[in-house]
Amino acid sequence: MVEMRVAVLYSGGKDSNYALYWALEQGFEVKYLVSMVSEREDSYMYHVPNIHLTELQARAIGIPLVKGFTSGEKEKEVEDMKAVLEGLKIDGVVAGALASEYQKKRVDKVARELGIESFAPAWHRDPIEYMRELIGIFDIVMIGVSAYGLDESWLGRRIDEKALEELVKLHEKYGIHVAGEGGEFETFVRDAPFFKARIVFDEVEKKWDGFNYSGVLEVKRAHLERKSKNKNRNGPIGGAQMKS
Amino acid sequence: MVEMRVAVLYSGGKDSNYALYWALEQGFEVKYLVSMVSEREDSYMYHVPNIHLTELQARAIGIPLVKGFTSGEKEKEVEDMKAVLEGLKIDGVVAGALASEYQKKRVDKVARELGIESFAPAWHRDPIEYMRELIGIFDIVMIGVSAYGLDESWLGRRIDEKALEELVKLHEKYGIHVAGEGGEFETFVRDAPFFKARIVFDEVEKKWDGFNYSGVLEVKRAHLERKSKNKNRNGPIGGAQMKS
Repeated sequence: MVEMRVAVLYSGGKDSNYALYWALEQGFEVKYLVSMVSEREDSYMYHVPNIHLTELQARAIGIPLVKGFTSGEKEKEVEDMKAVLEGLKIDGVVAGALASEYQKKRVDKVARELGIESFAPAWHRDPIEYMRELIGIFDIVMIGVSAYGLDESWLGRRIDEKALEELVKLHEKYGIHVAGEGGEFETFVRDAPFFKARIVFDEVEKKWDGFNYSGVLEVKRAHLERKSKNKNRNGPIGGAQMKS
Repeated sequence: MVEMRVAVLYSGGKDSNYALYWALEQGFEVKYLVSMVSEREDSYMYHVPNIHLTELQARAIGIPLVKGFTSGEKEKEVEDMKAVLEGLKIDGVVAGALASEYQKKRVDKVARELGIESFAPAWHRDPIEYMRELIGIFDIVMIGVSAYGLDESWLGRRIDEKALEELVKLHEKYGIHVAGEGGEFETFVRDAPFFKARIVFDEVEKKWDGFNYSGVLEVKRAHLERKSKNKNRNGPIGGAQMKS
């Protein structure tokens, strides 16, 4: 069988890490992680929170990271992504799309135009079951919050079973999507079975806007920490795939 | 004529910017800037000085940046670069090699193995004449110094005609290579004709090690500033190629 060479659309959160995880499980050759960065501000460093963290993740993973730049206008963004993917020798693109028709349709269209496959392994998964699977694989932390019902205490919180239970309750009470699909929250993956080193936050700052019920956890300093082969914090699949 | 699609090896300094400048002048289609990042430390953020600045430059330029990661071992580095370039649809690679046989031979070898062209437009240029040309094109600042004869005052200094004159004198007195080819200094390009926005340093910190006659200018915060079409700080060729 000819190996499937793919690029994974990667923003550093739980869904793009799931896309990568799935691609590796399929035996795909993941050639590049691709991050599209939107230019919506005049200042690009430190003012766009955590913009550098995907690079730290890519290093931990050991797959080259392609950073594409786009004005951030909706349709232009799709063209810009197409231009970035067009120059890669790939047979497919893998996206973490869960329920966003907008996102999935655009990626599918670009793939069709480039004559490559489009994969969205999380597409239309049941949110609770999906989150439960993610919790068992990744070390996920909430780094952005934007919904009534989610307060400052969620910033920097690790998503574990207990947090998921609370999210389910918040879903019932306020309609918050359990997997944050409506933009309710943003996550960051600090560790995964395919990370050769885990990410440790050294200095963080919570920025909370009580008026808009939203906030971000700005990671000021972070470093990579080698994972020992015996210490398996990610459950049964953790150790087997480590290369370090 | 079929257009030549190339990747430019890009580290953000004067030589890689010259490589890019030359490639654009040839009418090459520059698909990607490629930065290889060496993993020689346990901490990757902020401790490796100015690691994020190439991304700011790539944004200013508007060409996708590919970041490859390598252990930093000499021969492994070449293999890792080959793996990064191998997945790109390119007909050639352009490098800023000036006098380093080591660097040029390795790039040539990788290109040969991949069946693509290898370009080194600055190769064996006269250092003084080369520096004079660069000064006329780019806004270059010294961000690293490591040679007896160069002191702290060079950190953050703009390389202009006067600085070049002094470098020539330091060459005569101490043997310092005028273009820093022996590792005497590291430069950073804040502006070039192909930059759509210039880079402005907001907060810098000089770190000086008097014992080893070496130091770095750590850029803590920087931002992009739109260039007006009339204000032409880069000499005659400056305004013509701006797109903003």
